Amino acid sequence: MSTTFDRIRRFLTEHAPSSPCLVIDLDAVADRYREVAAAFENARVCYAVKANPAPPVISTLVSAGASFDVASPAEIKLCLAAGADPESLSYGNPIKKPSAIEFAHNVGVREFTCDAEGDLDNIARFAPGAQVQVRLLVEAPDSVTPFGRKFGCVPRRATELLLRAVELGLEPTGVSFHVGSQQLDPAAWELAAAAAATVFTACAEQGTTLRRLNIGGGFGVSYDREAPSLAEYAGTVDASLRAHFGQPLPELVLEPGRAMVAEAGLIRAEVVLVARKSATDPARWVYLDIGRYNGLAETENEAIAYRFEPVDDTGTAEEEGPVIIAGPTCDGDDVLYQHTPYRLPLALRAGDQLDILATGAYTASYSSVAFNGIEPLPTYCITGGRLISAH
Amino acid sequence: MSTTFDRIRRFLTEHAPSSPCLVIDLDAVADRYREVAAAFENARVCYAVKANPAPPVISTLVSAGASFDVASPAEIKLCLAAGADPESLSYGNPIKKPSAIEFAHNVGVREFTCDAEGDLDNIARFAPGAQVQVRLLVEAPDSVTPFGRKFGCVPRRATELLLRAVELGLEPTGVSFHVGSQQLDPAAWELAAAAAATVFTACAEQGTTLRRLNIGGGFGVSYDREAPSLAEYAGTVDASLRAHFGQPLPELVLEPGRAMVAEAGLIRAEVVLVARKSATDPARWVYLDIGRYNGLAETENEAIAYRFEPVDDTGTAEEEGPVIIAGPTCDGDDVLYQHTPYRLPLALRAGDQLDILATGAYTASYSSVAFNGIEPLPTYCITGGRLISAH
Repeated sequence: MSTTFDRIRRFLTEHAPSSPCLVIDLDAVADRYREVAAAFENARVCYAVKANPAPPVISTLVSAGASFDVASPAEIKLCLAAGADPESLSYGNPIKKPSAIEFAHNVGVREFTCDAEGDLDNIARFAPGAQVQVRLLVEAPDSVTPFGRKFGCVPRRATELLLRAVELGLEPTGVSFHVGSQQLDPAAWELAAAAAATVFTACAEQGTTLRRLNIGGGFGVSYDREAPSLAEYAGTVDASLRAHFGQPLPELVLEPGRAMVAEAGLIRAEVVLVARKSATDPARWVYLDIGRYNGLAETENEAIAYRFEPVDDTGTAEEEGPVIIAGPTCDGDDVLYQHTPYRLPLALRAGDQLDILATGAYTASYSSVAFNGIEPLPTYCITGGRLISAH
Repeated sequence: MSTTFDRIRRFLTEHAPSSPCLVIDLDAVADRYREVAAAFENARVCYAVKANPAPPVISTLVSAGASFDVASPAEIKLCLAAGADPESLSYGNPIKKPSAIEFAHNVGVREFTCDAEGDLDNIARFAPGAQVQVRLLVEAPDSVTPFGRKFGCVPRRATELLLRAVELGLEPTGVSFHVGSQQLDPAAWELAAAAAATVFTACAEQGTTLRRLNIGGGFGVSYDREAPSLAEYAGTVDASLRAHFGQPLPELVLEPGRAMVAEAGLIRAEVVLVARKSATDPARWVYLDIGRYNGLAETENEAIAYRFEPVDDTGTAEEEGPVIIAGPTCDGDDVLYQHTPYRLPLALRAGDQLDILATGAYTASYSSVAFNGIEPLPTYCITGGRLISAH
């Protein structure tokens, strides 16, 4: 970790790009892919493109041997442009127009996720013969950014859809689920795997053998507190599969996004203003040039508590005080942290720089086009410490 | 109102642009400006550019005689490019880098808002002699999207800042406040005006006469329920000024954003999927091709409840049922309404179109660059029913 951020900081010192910006260390992305693949032996690792769709990130992962979870025609085009084999793409979004299915099919995408009859019928019509996995709605313990009930269906309906897929001339491969992004409780996968196994059994009883289990992403990143290790997640998943599925075990598919790129990225930002509302206000307000609308969308409800580090040494912990951290727009919701207890140096001044760590995932891609006239967060990608792209 | 939406619908029928899209009727924008200016006699009406920065909207308002509330150098450039006089711009964002102040000063912007010493010092240095108004933190009744405590300072500090402005060679003009966007209680302005008057008095006692009161925006739009009329807002404001300020009354400045453009716009979207999670699920999930990340950001916490109208006649109220409405991304937070009780026709199917009314404000400008690979919401501007720009 420190090596990645050290490389990024050296780049920032040398190039001093305009603030704010995100820098991604592609070497860390490749390393992380290999760590994930090693932890989950024999699994197919599909990078969830939405986490960070910067083209060099995709190219790096193509070279490393990754597969991809894509959500739209634009993400498919992006992966193909980066050299991905269409068969390495899994269309994981159950919400898709017929034109999107047709596009994916025409360029060679073979696998589609669905959770409803209407979508299944469209897949049969516009991607005849495709592989289909059905997404299960699982009751997982709350993750940091839970999914709620938006995706998936109950096991009985999943079974019906998989059997219907056979009738429609499709190839039902298995079940997918997602236990919520930044899921810090590995037991979530145990519960979900047990539910998925019931669908495998129910389909087998009707003569349809499923072979693939997609356990989604959600593996945690150490932001404000330590996340479980990949080995812990993998151990729980492996034990769950052995407990709930017969032999041979299903083919395992993962869809990590955050866990693949978050720790490969660092945002450097600038303090625009430090102020107190009144002379007796205990906390200072620290306004940055980055906020919810140009990169830090995941601070909504203070869900993700990033780590902030002043770039210049500004003293010891005794010389810190409580702060409320806010973004640069005229929007009252553009306050990053007012409940999470953050402390920053008392010496912090306008013009000082801050590093925001582990910000490679779900930052630049959420930026608004130009809310308040503020540009989207630019991304610089480096490898071997050298800049290879800026956009 | 119906005339505006009728004109937009005729345009949509004739041109059938790709879904989703926002259409703005510029004639309605100009009409609305005139209504606001007429309701608040003698007031300077500054359009809050952030609400909808489409260049034709700005040009229309320049022609109509509006002034502008700008939040950044990019918004200043936009207004100047549309032909605005720099003296018609008010830099209303108290969070600004020195480079932004310098830019504004160099192009001729004369008025700046501040709420903290650091910013005031920067204004004195980079915009010497500028007009300064200080923003007051007011305790208003909750609006639909309240500001919280992000902006403004307490009256005592506001007075200190205004007196300090004199020492720094600046021209302190008065006080600004904002009672929260979509503020449905006109009494909010009464409370805020009373607080502002104390600053006028305190400054006068120190020999500094203030002359201008900026009462912000926040005037409500009739989304799911009727908002007060402009006459009601104006009546309360007028009575408040007479009650709390001596003669001559202060010059009045308004900064409406939402109230100026919301009802001039309509979004047309498409149903992508209609599904139930299980056979016994009472509500259908209706997934649209627009969601929180490509235009409907203000559905966060279901704050703004837009009105949806199916484009094709799909029956009577008896033929409707409860729905949960969600967006097209793989993001669990991209659910628009699951608590607000919406009903839509039971006959609604994938591919059907829906109109989302009064969506001219705070929609396209919040769009993400391409979250999930989905394009930002395009805006079409029409006048006299004819298309004059698409972007």
